[in-house]
Parts: sequence; C-alpha cells; structure tokens
Amino acid sequence: MFTVEKIKKISKVDYKTQKDELMLKVGELQRKAKELKVPILIIFEGMQGTGKGLIINELLLSLDPRGYNLYNNPDDRKNLTERPMFWKFWEHLPKTGEISIFYRSWYFSTLWREKDYNRSCIDINNIEEFLQDSGMVVLKFFLYTSKNEQSKRLKRFEKNPLSSKKSRRIALRKNKHYDEIMDKWEKIIQISDNGIVGWHIICAEDLNFAKLEVLKLISQELENRLEVKTSQIPIVLPTIQSFDLSTVDLKQNIKPKEYKETLKKYQKRLHDLQFEVFKKKIPVIIAYEGWDAAGKGGNIKRLVEKLDPRGYSVIPISSPNDFEKSRPYLWRFWHYFPKFGYFAIFDRTWYGRVLVERVENFATELEWKRSYKEIREMEEQWVNSNAVVIKFWLQIDKDEQLRRFEERKNNQDKQWKITDEDWRNREKWDEYELAVSEMIARTNNIRAPWTIVPSNNKYYSRLFVLKTVIEAIEDHLKK
Amino acid sequence: MFTVEKIKKISKVDYKTQKDELMLKVGELQRKAKELKVPILIIFEGMQGTGKGLIINELLLSLDPRGYNLYNNPDDRKNLTERPMFWKFWEHLPKTGEISIFYRSWYFSTLWREKDYNRSCIDINNIEEFLQDSGMVVLKFFLYTSKNEQSKRLKRFEKNPLSSKKSRRIALRKNKHYDEIMDKWEKIIQISDNGIVGWHIICAEDLNFAKLEVLKLISQELENRLEVKTSQIPIVLPTIQSFDLSTVDLKQNIKPKEYKETLKKYQKRLHDLQFEVFKKKIPVIIAYEGWDAAGKGGNIKRLVEKLDPRGYSVIPISSPNDFEKSRPYLWRFWHYFPKFGYFAIFDRTWYGRVLVERVENFATELEWKRSYKEIREMEEQWVNSNAVVIKFWLQIDKDEQLRRFEERKNNQDKQWKITDEDWRNREKWDEYELAVSEMIARTNNIRAPWTIVPSNNKYYSRLFVLKTVIEAIEDHLKK
Repeated sequence: MFTVEKIKKISKVDYKTQKDELMLKVGELQRKAKELKVPILIIFEGMQGTGKGLIINELLLSLDPRGYNLYNNPDDRKNLTERPMFWKFWEHLPKTGEISIFYRSWYFSTLWREKDYNRSCIDINNIEEFLQDSGMVVLKFFLYTSKNEQSKRLKRFEKNPLSSKKSRRIALRKNKHYDEIMDKWEKIIQISDNGIVGWHIICAEDLNFAKLEVLKLISQELENRLEVKTSQIPIVLPTIQSFDLSTVDLKQNIKPKEYKETLKKYQKRLHDLQFEVFKKKIPVIIAYEGWDAAGKGGNIKRLVEKLDPRGYSVIPISSPNDFEKSRPYLWRFWHYFPKFGYFAIFDRTWYGRVLVERVENFATELEWKRSYKEIREMEEQWVNSNAVVIKFWLQIDKDEQLRRFEERKNNQDKQWKITDEDWRNREKWDEYELAVSEMIARTNNIRAPWTIVPSNNKYYSRLFVLKTVIEAIEDHLKK
Repeated sequence: MFTVEKIKKISKVDYKTQKDELMLKVGELQRKAKELKVPILIIFEGMQGTGKGLIINELLLSLDPRGYNLYNNPDDRKNLTERPMFWKFWEHLPKTGEISIFYRSWYFSTLWREKDYNRSCIDINNIEEFLQDSGMVVLKFFLYTSKNEQSKRLKRFEKNPLSSKKSRRIALRKNKHYDEIMDKWEKIIQISDNGIVGWHIICAEDLNFAKLEVLKLISQELENRLEVKTSQIPIVLPTIQSFDLSTVDLKQNIKPKEYKETLKKYQKRLHDLQFEVFKKKIPVIIAYEGWDAAGKGGNIKRLVEKLDPRGYSVIPISSPNDFEKSRPYLWRFWHYFPKFGYFAIFDRTWYGRVLVERVENFATELEWKRSYKEIREMEEQWVNSNAVVIKFWLQIDKDEQLRRFEERKNNQDKQWKITDEDWRNREKWDEYELAVSEMIARTNNIRAPWTIVPSNNKYYSRLFVLKTVIEAIEDHLKK
C-alpha cells in the first residue's frame, strides 16, 4: 500500500502560511471538542526515521496543553510486563473533552509478536470498535518513507553524537530489514482497515509535506466527526436459550460443625495457593454478582480471611464516579486489573451493564446489547493473559430475600444494610431475573465460566465459593 | 455460551402440527427467494451427535430439490489439499435464487488448525462480510448437547453395526474431549460473532425441539431479510497518495539481436523453474492489466512459449457471462485458482472492478470502493496458501497508443484487434488514469506487488515481464 514517488517540494513560504492557518484551526477544534465533551485519540505509527516525533511536536504546539496528554509507548519487546498488553493503553485513554496522543500504540506492540500476532489484531479491531461506539473519535496515522530516504536519515542519526551506540546499531539494522518491516506493517494495516477507524497513510519523504498533511487531516476529521452521533445500527445478537434460574436447587443444608471444619481446611488451602499463584505470576480475578441480600459481603469476608492482604484487593463497584464516568464504561475494570500474581475481587462487576443499567434504563438497549460481546472480549483478553477468571452468581429465592430483608429491618445492627433501593429493586425481581438469565447464557464460557452458587444457606454458599476458587486455581496450575 | 437445562419435551402431536406448518412456510420462502434472485447460504456446525444430519434432512424435505445443493464438508484434516482451504467453499456458493447448505463449513475446517487458526478466523469474517455485502443471505447454526446426552448418543452409535470401527473409536474419543472441543467452539463463535452474520445457537438436547427451532429461525430470517437491501453505509478508505503514472520512464529501447538472445535465455530459465514449482507444489498467479494496445497478448505469448502446456492455463477475462454473473464478482477468480504447482495467467483480472467497472459505472461507488479491501484480502489468502502472486501493469503513453491504433486500423491482418470500444475507452484516458493510479496505490503490497512495465517498446516490455516472473519465483523458492 506504500508507493513513493518524486516529491513535490513545498516552498518555505507556502509551508509557513498553510501551517499557521492549520494550527489555528486545530486549536479551535480542540476547544470545540472540550465543549462537546468528545474524547479524541490520535495514534501515530510509522517506520523508523519518518519524523514522527517532529510531526507530533508540531501538533502539540497547536494545542492547549491543559487538554491533551502524550503517551510514549516504549519498545518493551523484551521487558517483562506486569499486566496484559492492552492495560497500559486503557490507562492512557482520553477523558471526555480531552485528547490523547499515542506515540506508537497497540500496533507497534503487536508488530513483533509471533504466536499471538493475529489474535492481537483481532483484539485491536474489537477495542477500536468499542472506543468508537463509546463516542470516542479515533484517528490513526501511519508514516513511511522510501528505503533510500530512511537510510539517509538513519545515517544522519548515526553521526549524531547524542544518540547512544546501541540505538544507532538498532536503527541501521532496521534499514537493512526495511522490506520485511514494511511487509509486517502492510499486513497489520490490512487487517485493521476495519471500516471502523480509517487509516491515514502518509508518505513522509518530504517532512514538511507530511506535517501539513497530518494537520490537515486532523482538522478535516474533527470538523466532520465531532458532532456525529455514534452508530445507531441495531445489533444482531446470536439466538440462544436463556438460562433458567428456577432449575437451581436451593435446598442444601450444612451443619455448623461441618461448616467450621471445612471452612478452616479450605481457607488454609487457599492461603497456600495464593503463594503458588504469586510465584507463577498468575492474575486471579473473582467476580461477585447476586441478588440483594444474597450474602456477597459475608462471602467475600470468608474468602479473603486467611489471605495475605498484600496479595489481594477487594473492589466494591457502585455507580461510577465523575472520574470514571468521563471514560468508556469498561475503563474502570481494566484499571483495577490485578498485577500478575495478585487477586482482584470485585463486589459487583462489569455485568452491571446488563443488569442494573439494563433494568433501570441507564444504558440504551443498543448499549447493553452490544456489551455482551464487549464483555466477552475483555474476559477473553484477560484469559489470554494467563488470568484465572471466576464469576459467581449468588442465587437465593424471593422468599429467602424477603426473610433477610425483614431480619435486617428488625435488627438494630443490620439496619444499615437495607435501603429503600433494595425494596425498589425487589419489586423488579422478574425483570432482573430475565436479565440474569440472559446474561448467564450469553457470557458463560468454558474459560471464563459462571458458577451459580445456591445461597439460601449461607454456610453452603461460602464453602461452595471457596471450593470453586480452589479448584479453578488448581486446574490452572496444572496446565 | 452454552447452557443446558432441563428439557421441555414437545408432545408428538404438537411437534407434527408445528413442523408441517413451518415446512410449508420454508418452501414458500424458497420460491420467493428464487423470484427475487436472492442467493441463500445456510451453514450447519455443531458437536458430534447433535443430529445435524437429521435436522438438515428435515429441512431438505421442505425444499424444492431443483433449487438447493448440499455440500458435505469432509473432515480432511489429514489429507493433502490441492488448493487453498477456502477454495472448495467458493466452488459451492449458491447462485442467485438458490440455496446452498453447508454440512460443516469453514468453521469446522478452521477448528483444528493450530498455527493459522486466528488468521483463518479473520478470513472467515472477511468472507462472510463480503458475501453479505454482495447480497447473499447467510445463516449460521450451531448445535450442541450436554456431555451426558452426547455420550448416550455416541454409545448408541457405537452399537450400530453399520458404523465402522474407526468412526466409532473417533466418536467416543470426542466425548472424552467434550470440554476441550466446546472451548474451541466458544472461541471461534466469539470471534465470528461479528455483527455481520449472526449465529443461531441451538440446544439439541431434545431433537424435535431443535428441528422446530431451525425451521422457525430459517423462516423468520428469510421473512425479514429477503427484501432488505444490502448495506449502504458509506465506506471509509484509508487516506493514501495515488501513484503517479507520469513518473514511469518509457524511453527504453532494445536491439532485436539482444532481444532474441535474452528472450531465449529467459524462456529457458522459466521452463526450468516451471518444473521446480511443480515439484514444490507452489501455485503461481500472474495477472496482466494495462492500456488497450499495450501488448498484453504478445507478452503472454512470449511468457508461455516454452512452458509445458499441461502446467499452465491462460484465462482471458472479459465481461462476466450469465453463469458468472449469478455469483459474487470474485467467484470466477477463485474458480480459476490454479492447482498447487500450476500457473494461472490472467489476461485482465479482478482489477476490472476498480478500472472498467468503476469508469463505466457498472459498479456503484460503494461497490468499487469496497473492493480494494476485498481484493487485498483475496490476494492475502492466496499468498498465505504459498502462492506467488505477480501483477503487471503494462504502461504506454497516449501517443504510443494512438500510433498502435492507427497501425491496426491500416493493417489488414491486425484489424480484428481494434474495435470501436477501444476508441471509446481512449476518450476516457484521464478517467482511467485516475483509476489506475488509485488502484496501484491501494493494492500494492510487498507480498503481492504491482510491477509497472514500461511498454512503449515491446521487446523491452516482454523481457521485463519474463525477468520479473523469474525473479519472483526464484525469491519464493529461496524461502
């Protein structure tokens, strides 16, 4: 896709005039984006020696520095990472009304992968689609020069006494492999020419030409897209049978003595496993969902009771705060992704999207329908990063909930646990049941499965959860 | 994504009534599809023992046998293939107004791939998008049962004296690996839940239930989609610099004596390479495009002159015949894909879509714009199947064309070569030049590159082509 021709040089005067005009325009559009609360992500990729840095610099000069941030994606091919590849990019996504600029992005991080190269391309397409659907404007630039021009520039770089010996060596090796690297870029651009976020492929043989092109395209794109609504095309979900919650057997019982003994045994075992998991750098994600008063709190307490507190965190999820609201809805869950070797325990989760947000109409139908796939993709990426993902639905029946609500109401010490909202939610039991059934059917996967926990009996519920976690980790360690 | 619950058995009477009604409906919709000239592709995938065969049979009984064909995709994991994986599926695509049913499809063929599994998933998404865009209705069914039910059915199968010993062994092994296989299916369904062609995932724990579901969904889908227009969403093409044809140097000259000697040498070399290519089972695809009177015919003649005619075929491409028109436009090029080890030489090509069809408005703007990516994908798949893909643009200037036209007009023996259409095309030189420039820029890839052949001098042009082919094959053999 890259052809290089004779360059039409731009005169200095022309360049200056055009540039000044474009810079003003871009600054203006930045202010407009802020006003409209549209987040903007601009990605720069390209061959070595194409002047990416200089071009980005020109762009930055036209922007209000309080409204952008630049993320320089390091070449960390050989470094050990502490989190999944995409994590760092999520961290640096723009807030509403702001601009993030990625100096090299997920493309660069994918380019040198061998085994999971294609998988990573699939992930990229999914993420870009997700961001665009969430209302973000995403722009992608790829810069290239001819092999000769690159060679010239890299030689100049080599002579520069400020560049390190090592980076000089790498640069020259890169020119030698120009064709091979270009071929890799062509492939990745082809796969990611996804009809969702279009590429801008720019010949930087003449640097001034490239600078103007970038500014021109940014102002054109923002002009066209800042006020465009996100896609409203209805979504086709797979036909599927919902999971029937009424088939769950809730009659289990367990004696206090047996409970105590087993609890102790399980907690000891989990404590030992925590160390194993830490040594092997396996991230463990435990997600709790369930009816109000199903006993999530007490359950989590027993789960972590004997764990080393430096190795886990419990993340309670309620409605997002302002900081979180100014990002795509999955952002905060990525943010809390545990370091490799650690536990993250979510008290309510990303599934709020298809539960409370669906039932209470906080999300549009299009949004929550789309999220089944978005969530599956996120979990898939986690699992591919060697994570153990365990999802619990704590199931009680309607009578048991009423009993617990009444108990809370009448017990001084437990009154704080019950709110008007709980009663309101209870009135919508049937709607929630529908949402839960569909959620389980649509997001149950062998590698990130739902476990339905019969929880009318709290003892049973707690042991069941502990046992499931232990087995899941043991299975993973055996792999 | 697969949950199995208690089955609600359907009574025999209910089943019979519903089935009869649905079968009539499906038959009716088949006739409507024929009338509307809509091609329909129905894909069945699923675990062993889910009754795919029985379900398909029920479906076939409701159809007019003159209007469908069933393709049974064999389990050819271990067989050597003679063409790229997707080739056989292209061959069995439905014509307009007809129904093709794939008993196992590209999913099944992908499931067991290791190295190129993800790549194959990307290809599938692209192909399904292409088919849908071309106006085909594509339906996908996945059938599953619980592990227990599968085990029961496979045991019954085992006891069946008609099943071979080998297939019995395989069947039972499959039940043992139920989870592993389901996991593979989940992954592939997740990737291909592409918002383009939706999956229908059906629990076949009760076979009658599954039969009704399939018939119901087929009639619903056809009802909704037969009269829907294909997507008219405008397409975002990558920004790119067009290739400037005026930069091609056309002043080369070559002496007759030198020409003769070199020609002989090159032809000998190519003859030897043909044997190498045959031994190594490398398919070679040579695509010729160029201005009218640029000398394609004479060029091809010199190329094949010394080749073994059993090893190549020359495929002249003009406007599609009725047989070809009733299929998606890329169909005929897939059809002519050479067997591994053979040459296919195309005299004009799939690029007609962005040349003549664009300039003459035979394709809509949306169609030809979309085709850059479709074509790149097709070539990518070919290259991934170990093919050598060589694309020539024979470049002459406008004066040279006129000279040759006049010569043809005035020379009795050559008059057949010149038609009114040639003169008409010549009037649109500028429009064609624009189309060619964009085509080269958008579809030039390192692994399927364009070679611009200066052809004002025919000798030079012929040697240039021969040399390029020789080098491309030599490079490939070195890999």
